[in-house]
Amino acid sequence: MAKRTVSKPDWTANPGERPQEKCGVFAVHNYTGPDNAAVVTYHGLLALQHRGQESAGMAFCDQKGMQVIKNMGLVDQVFSRRELDAIIAPSIIGHVRYSTTGSSILANAQPLIARSYNQGGIALAHNGNLTNTRRLYNKLLDEGQIFHTTSDTEIMLTYLFRYRRSGLAAAVNKTMRLIEGAYAAVVMDDHQMVAFRDPNGFRPLAIGRLGQASVFASETAALDTVGADFVREVEPGEIVTAGPEGLNSLKTMPNEPCQSICIFEYVYFARPDSILKNRNVHAVRKMVGSLLARRIPVTALDMVIPSPDSGVSAAMGLAESLNLPLEWAVHRNPYLGRTFIEPTQSEREEAVRLKFNPIRNLVNNKKVVVVDDSLVRGTTSRIITSLLKTCGAAEVHLCIASPPFINPCYYGIDIPVAAELAAMNDNADRLAESIGADSVTFAEPADLYRAVGMDQSKLCTACFSGSYPALNLLTGK
Amino acid sequence: MAKRTVSKPDWTANPGERPQEKCGVFAVHNYTGPDNAAVVTYHGLLALQHRGQESAGMAFCDQKGMQVIKNMGLVDQVFSRRELDAIIAPSIIGHVRYSTTGSSILANAQPLIARSYNQGGIALAHNGNLTNTRRLYNKLLDEGQIFHTTSDTEIMLTYLFRYRRSGLAAAVNKTMRLIEGAYAAVVMDDHQMVAFRDPNGFRPLAIGRLGQASVFASETAALDTVGADFVREVEPGEIVTAGPEGLNSLKTMPNEPCQSICIFEYVYFARPDSILKNRNVHAVRKMVGSLLARRIPVTALDMVIPSPDSGVSAAMGLAESLNLPLEWAVHRNPYLGRTFIEPTQSEREEAVRLKFNPIRNLVNNKKVVVVDDSLVRGTTSRIITSLLKTCGAAEVHLCIASPPFINPCYYGIDIPVAAELAAMNDNADRLAESIGADSVTFAEPADLYRAVGMDQSKLCTACFSGSYPALNLLTGK
Amino acid sequence: MAKRTVSKPDWTANPGERPQEKCGVFAVHNYTGPDNAAVVTYHGLLALQHRGQESAGMAFCDQKGMQVIKNMGLVDQVFSRRELDAIIAPSIIGHVRYSTTGSSILANAQPLIARSYNQGGIALAHNGNLTNTRRLYNKLLDEGQIFHTTSDTEIMLTYLFRYRRSGLAAAVNKTMRLIEGAYAAVVMDDHQMVAFRDPNGFRPLAIGRLGQASVFASETAALDTVGADFVREVEPGEIVTAGPEGLNSLKTMPNEPCQSICIFEYVYFARPDSILKNRNVHAVRKMVGSLLARRIPVTALDMVIPSPDSGVSAAMGLAESLNLPLEWAVHRNPYLGRTFIEPTQSEREEAVRLKFNPIRNLVNNKKVVVVDDSLVRGTTSRIITSLLKTCGAAEVHLCIASPPFINPCYYGIDIPVAAELAAMNDNADRLAESIGADSVTFAEPADLYRAVGMDQSKLCTACFSGSYPALNLLTGK
Amino acid sequence: MAKRTVSKPDWTANPGERPQEKCGVFAVHNYTGPDNAAVVTYHGLLALQHRGQESAGMAFCDQKGMQVIKNMGLVDQVFSRRELDAIIAPSIIGHVRYSTTGSSILANAQPLIARSYNQGGIALAHNGNLTNTRRLYNKLLDEGQIFHTTSDTEIMLTYLFRYRRSGLAAAVNKTMRLIEGAYAAVVMDDHQMVAFRDPNGFRPLAIGRLGQASVFASETAALDTVGADFVREVEPGEIVTAGPEGLNSLKTMPNEPCQSICIFEYVYFARPDSILKNRNVHAVRKMVGSLLARRIPVTALDMVIPSPDSGVSAAMGLAESLNLPLEWAVHRNPYLGRTFIEPTQSEREEAVRLKFNPIRNLVNNKKVVVVDDSLVRGTTSRIITSLLKTCGAAEVHLCIASPPFINPCYYGIDIPVAAELAAMNDNADRLAESIGADSVTFAEPADLYRAVGMDQSKLCTACFSGSYPALNLLTGK
Repeated sequence: MAKRTVSKPDWTANPGERPQEKCGVFAVHNYTGPDNAAVVTYHGLLALQHRGQESAGMAFCDQKGMQVIKNMGLVDQVFSRRELDAIIAPSIIGHVRYSTTGSSILANAQPLIARSYNQGGIALAHNGNLTNTRRLYNKLLDEGQIFHTTSDTEIMLTYLFRYRRSGLAAAVNKTMRLIEGAYAAVVMDDHQMVAFRDPNGFRPLAIGRLGQASVFASETAALDTVGADFVREVEPGEIVTAGPEGLNSLKTMPNEPCQSICIFEYVYFARPDSILKNRNVHAVRKMVGSLLARRIPVTALDMVIPSPDSGVSAAMGLAESLNLPLEWAVHRNPYLGRTFIEPTQSEREEAVRLKFNPIRNLVNNKKVVVVDDSLVRGTTSRIITSLLKTCGAAEVHLCIASPPFINPCYYGIDIPVAAELAAMNDNADRLAESIGADSVTFAEPADLYRAVGMDQSKLCTACFSGSYPALNLLTGK
Repeated sequence: MAKRTVSKPDWTANPGERPQEKCGVFAVHNYTGPDNAAVVTYHGLLALQHRGQESAGMAFCDQKGMQVIKNMGLVDQVFSRRELDAIIAPSIIGHVRYSTTGSSILANAQPLIARSYNQGGIALAHNGNLTNTRRLYNKLLDEGQIFHTTSDTEIMLTYLFRYRRSGLAAAVNKTMRLIEGAYAAVVMDDHQMVAFRDPNGFRPLAIGRLGQASVFASETAALDTVGADFVREVEPGEIVTAGPEGLNSLKTMPNEPCQSICIFEYVYFARPDSILKNRNVHAVRKMVGSLLARRIPVTALDMVIPSPDSGVSAAMGLAESLNLPLEWAVHRNPYLGRTFIEPTQSEREEAVRLKFNPIRNLVNNKKVVVVDDSLVRGTTSRIITSLLKTCGAAEVHLCIASPPFINPCYYGIDIPVAAELAAMNDNADRLAESIGADSVTFAEPADLYRAVGMDQSKLCTACFSGSYPALNLLTGK
Repeated sequence: MAKRTVSKPDWTANPGERPQEKCGVFAVHNYTGPDNAAVVTYHGLLALQHRGQESAGMAFCDQKGMQVIKNMGLVDQVFSRRELDAIIAPSIIGHVRYSTTGSSILANAQPLIARSYNQGGIALAHNGNLTNTRRLYNKLLDEGQIFHTTSDTEIMLTYLFRYRRSGLAAAVNKTMRLIEGAYAAVVMDDHQMVAFRDPNGFRPLAIGRLGQASVFASETAALDTVGADFVREVEPGEIVTAGPEGLNSLKTMPNEPCQSICIFEYVYFARPDSILKNRNVHAVRKMVGSLLARRIPVTALDMVIPSPDSGVSAAMGLAESLNLPLEWAVHRNPYLGRTFIEPTQSEREEAVRLKFNPIRNLVNNKKVVVVDDSLVRGTTSRIITSLLKTCGAAEVHLCIASPPFINPCYYGIDIPVAAELAAMNDNADRLAESIGADSVTFAEPADLYRAVGMDQSKLCTACFSGSYPALNLLTGK
Repeated sequence: MAKRTVSKPDWTANPGERPQEKCGVFAVHNYTGPDNAAVVTYHGLLALQHRGQESAGMAFCDQKGMQVIKNMGLVDQVFSRRELDAIIAPSIIGHVRYSTTGSSILANAQPLIARSYNQGGIALAHNGNLTNTRRLYNKLLDEGQIFHTTSDTEIMLTYLFRYRRSGLAAAVNKTMRLIEGAYAAVVMDDHQMVAFRDPNGFRPLAIGRLGQASVFASETAALDTVGADFVREVEPGEIVTAGPEGLNSLKTMPNEPCQSICIFEYVYFARPDSILKNRNVHAVRKMVGSLLARRIPVTALDMVIPSPDSGVSAAMGLAESLNLPLEWAVHRNPYLGRTFIEPTQSEREEAVRLKFNPIRNLVNNKKVVVVDDSLVRGTTSRIITSLLKTCGAAEVHLCIASPPFINPCYYGIDIPVAAELAAMNDNADRLAESIGADSVTFAEPADLYRAVGMDQSKLCTACFSGSYPALNLLTGK
């Protein structure tokens, strides 16, 4: 199936309210083990905390109907032991969320639930971003629908609720023919749980088994954490139903799904210990580092320094390839990520400066390579470079284990506006100058494809290639 | 217009979820005074705190659109000084809410808002209870509407939002022709604010003026508190629009409104310093006490003791009429209302016991009259009686300044289920026995009408008469 | 024994740090009932909450030694159910505290404990104020003692700890021969609990019995609340030991104790339902109101209005004597005591204004008497008067059920500095003018003595008479 | 000066109350820069957060006298932006603290302050552990001193306060002649600040300069973080006074100080980017890893895996020496350190299990070396080993970059009781068996001395050698 380059999705006419978000989904169905299901979900969400630190929530159905507990904050701030113990339900949908400040309101925290007095409610957790929300939104407005949130997830929820009487899987199928964009989601009513993924498969969603229970998780690392066995991924365009009789699969497309998995999951977003399409994320990053080694334009280097902790995997590969010592020469204070002093750009720089500290003895008069996974705003790289120079580093060469990141993402990753993208208008030389480094080297796209082990056609590479996969293979648009 | 006795409203087929509530509404429009409007609203809500202690909220429209700040808790717990100062908006709708435990969830806290990206949102605060919600709810469900709350207010909000394009006052008019029951409400968009009251006028809603600003409040005491002048009440069936050009009134009915103001507002609910239909609430209660004096079946009494603080006004009237000393002989610990030890009935009794303490010296060997405003469960009366007897009171005669309360309310006051109503099945003698008092005397309905200065036909007296006013004069049902 | 007028106590050379405080003490020894002792103490402290709202604490001895839980805030804010349940100890000392802002620090919250690894610690709760602290403090400083608090209680604690090896009662006896001033206190080690009261008996301390347990409480109302029987008061100068063998009494003076109980406990401080020296506090206040009736310089009055809630008892007596209607014509919003808007004087006035609301209908064109228990700063009286005039009251006559309050207290009640005392330099006429009232009438001291039923020589009346009782009958100074 | 092996210090007769603690000290004197001194101290404490996560505090002297703000929790939990801004003082002493659960009470949180009404107070922050506290404590008890804490720091504070009239530096000098053990401390009155270190120099303390201000910090990394220049360390036995005229040094001993710096600071405790005695901590750890490479009894290994993050530096050295790939094959979830599920040993194991996740693809059928810095209880090593085996690792060899840790520390590091020390009774083979590893290799002491670049005589190596340095060179004991 052919790829098409598309223009910006309709929603972004109103950019301040663009409901993009990074998220993690974890759900367990029909759990009957020694812990209660809420503790399992709690552990699963902790394992996915890196995918969203803004809010956390769990939805479940008990004798009072569909309930949700959610709040702003980290998983361990939102849930107390006491609350977990009070959740008596074998099936739970959990969610962690990150979003831009503009829509950072409790109403948008997930799971979202639609209540119904006499027919039971439904709960939905969603990772991704729809691209035809404006059209659907206006249609629903015309039909009299009101909205409580500014999240595209509420549009999905509305259709799922409307169609639910024919069964939840059928409702998902109908809804998928209306919505476009990226989604890996789990929906639940009081009978069953349904996981589904858009036909491009932008966002990951894995299936696990924990005793008799089914588990769905954004990353396999969460399955490992709760002790579940990894079964397989939900396929692009697939609808998987977990009910009393086990798992059931419904394919939405007659042909092969046209996979376009997000390259940024490998580059930065996923945990290094997760597996996506049979490729371990750390191994991919390390291999990119190895391949990147050949592209560095300088020799006689003294050491490789990972940008902590995001550049560690790639730095290992690069140091091995170049046969250079790997040095832990920039220390990151783990407690400073939590400082409250971060509002403005100058304060953000101050926070980065407080967070990192190079070891003067190690780098003094040395030619060093600093490795990071990606370059977005460039703030961290600029400050680490400047700190190293202050400590006497003779040369600082920056290696980025991904291509220049120059296009916005419409499929669920929140990215600064174009003007803030460091790599957008600069070539590597000008970029090096602005960062203060002696050189900047990016990975070539081909390095990435080789490391991932997939052809570009199987990936969404829009953020550096500008080639956006077709928005919806089901709606035909 | 004729009254009809009606059966239970349709909603209560599902009693556990019956969204009844007591509430207070305070709104200010176009305030430009020295404080900011949020501080004025904060003071107004504090003045109405007795009408709802479960949650509090404020909605307002700033440059980011329609916003709401609300949370579980008392007004001073929900809002910090800092938050108030950050609200920059000349028009605000505030709400305090009480509800049964079942629906005591944050999602139900008011104001409710409906968001709309490109057309502005609306905010609604409602005091009362709709009676045809089930029918409307099912209709909306059929149309695909989803619900986030278990509150009938969301149904009103949905219709108001659907109709808002023809103007907010017109939307209110259309919505009032669909809904039945009790409502005194204020709705706002980014242009104007509209207050409206059901054609029976069950719940109060007063209009005030504060400099150039318009104010709406459930009780006149809140107008006094913020220094606003009382203008008049919103009439039953009236729609009052506050816009740039001042107040505008729209009557929904060609004839006289058929007022059925809730008698319980006078008996118990409203503040003593409020004025309803030109009658001061304390004066009404005191006069009921005076009239009640003639009905006490015993003589040679020694003193009158108010049940603190609910029986004070009536006790004053009764003591004056009987020319008996009024004694503050039962002390109420104001700090014990806040104890956390209240879950079960036995614990509730324990809490009451901790809260009240009679003065043994005063009551020992005395024949005392204890006066309270009403008798619902009877827990407080039973325990005060028992405490007085333990302290040596020779006789305890209980005077209740309202008739026996034997029917549920469908218009916005949350009342125990019939089985828990102390007065329901017992005559006064058996009731006295079960409470442990030497006699129990209730006010006659005629006493109440005389004290209020209105004919029964102008009042809703369903809770003791069983005569429920017509549910909606507009819908014709 | 003769009274002597004394100069200001030595401590006040440093007034900003003057550790004066109002307090409540509640202690239970060897409780083995159905609740745990911490719940009993919690209820006792709630009953004494009016004596101190700044901090609360409990000390107890468990297998880990002497422990204390205390914090700033009200009793129900300091202790959670969970914490209470975790306290496993049959003997507990509790305390509530109020103090001036200057020393409003957690370190001063009581009980104070002195820890000792191998010999057990002691805990002390104290109500009152020492007057020779400066001398003792300097002596202890010279001996090398360090201090963690700015409270005089730490000085008592130090001596009690130093002397504890000869037994706790002996240590109290020795300490009482060093300290001067007002104290009603309870001290505990891991074996016994000792209650003691200064030879003047300024501050109250009652003994109760709850099953097999002994109880000590600042007021009898707290005994009533927990269901304990009132046994008697700790006598002035008495040391009462509660140990395994029951209560034991040690008199510190050969002769009759020279009682000087604080008149302000009757006037304002104690709960109306408490009993001090066999006189009920409400009855005293009511009788002062009755006696005050004769002193009002005007006739043809229309009604008596209590200043809520402090003037209620006196207003009852006054209305009865004058045969005038008692009207609840000024409503106090109980929720506004908690508003955070109180820092400056103008803001304090604003807070009072928000808190009180007169009923215009009742007072319009009426000549009213407003009754309060005492006049300190006069802020409340001034604002209530002004509000009544605004509501159309023809005349407002202010009746104060105590004499003018013109001298500072050195025995434990925190009073504004002289310049702020409304009554200090003004005669009643000038005071009426400054308050805006048509007249101000104070009770005569003789009224008060008659109501209390005691000769002035049995009372401390320094605050209005300027006659300070001898500071310490034991130290001979 | 000769070393002596000593028996357990006197205090530990009462082990449950043994006030051992790890701590960090940061102080700034006479700061007049653009930020306020509290923000500088906040950043300094964040940089030392790894040295104590239980409580944090700051003491300073403003116009109200010596103040302290401290609480349980992390630095960013204890201090809000608002509180920091409210601290107006150029000189501040800060402290972070960790201790065993038994004495984990707020009263023990530092800085401790001694208050004095008329002569000013003093504040003290202390890192270390005194060893003759029992004797001093009993002496002070005999003299009548009372204690509020269970911390040995209060003993130091008492003597410093007693002697303070001859000047703070002289008071320190006198106090140092009384106390024995480990201390690196800073004390302050309203005039000056004095830093001092025990004659053995067990705990580190660095001097920095920040503009005109003097800074003292437990580690140089904190100086780097706040932008201060590292001047030098406070020497063992030295007293450094910061006053208006700059720094002043007083040596307490005529001869060379007998340095015994704690080896465990290099092994585990200090930040890798800190410098102790001119040796960078990361460099030391990496070199130990290199030297350790020669001692591994196996060959044909496939990869080196750091135990995250404690084993990273050593793993780098070991991988380089063996020319093996370094793999980030065990992922640590940074969010799981904060889970509340940790009370019992089985729950602690569960928490470790949740925290770590190996990458199956990488380790399957591989012979791996896992490197950690030290082995205390062995819980983490056992679980990582077990997880790796479950993921199919063919062999797991454990390398520990320090000698077996078999003796308790009396100088300020909290260590499990002997029975829990994994290495205590087992030889390496039995230990491997109990951990489930194929081999366990420890660094030799000589490796450590070589890496540190100091002779054993300059170090305290008691934890693995059992040779405890003389307890106090000043007291002569």
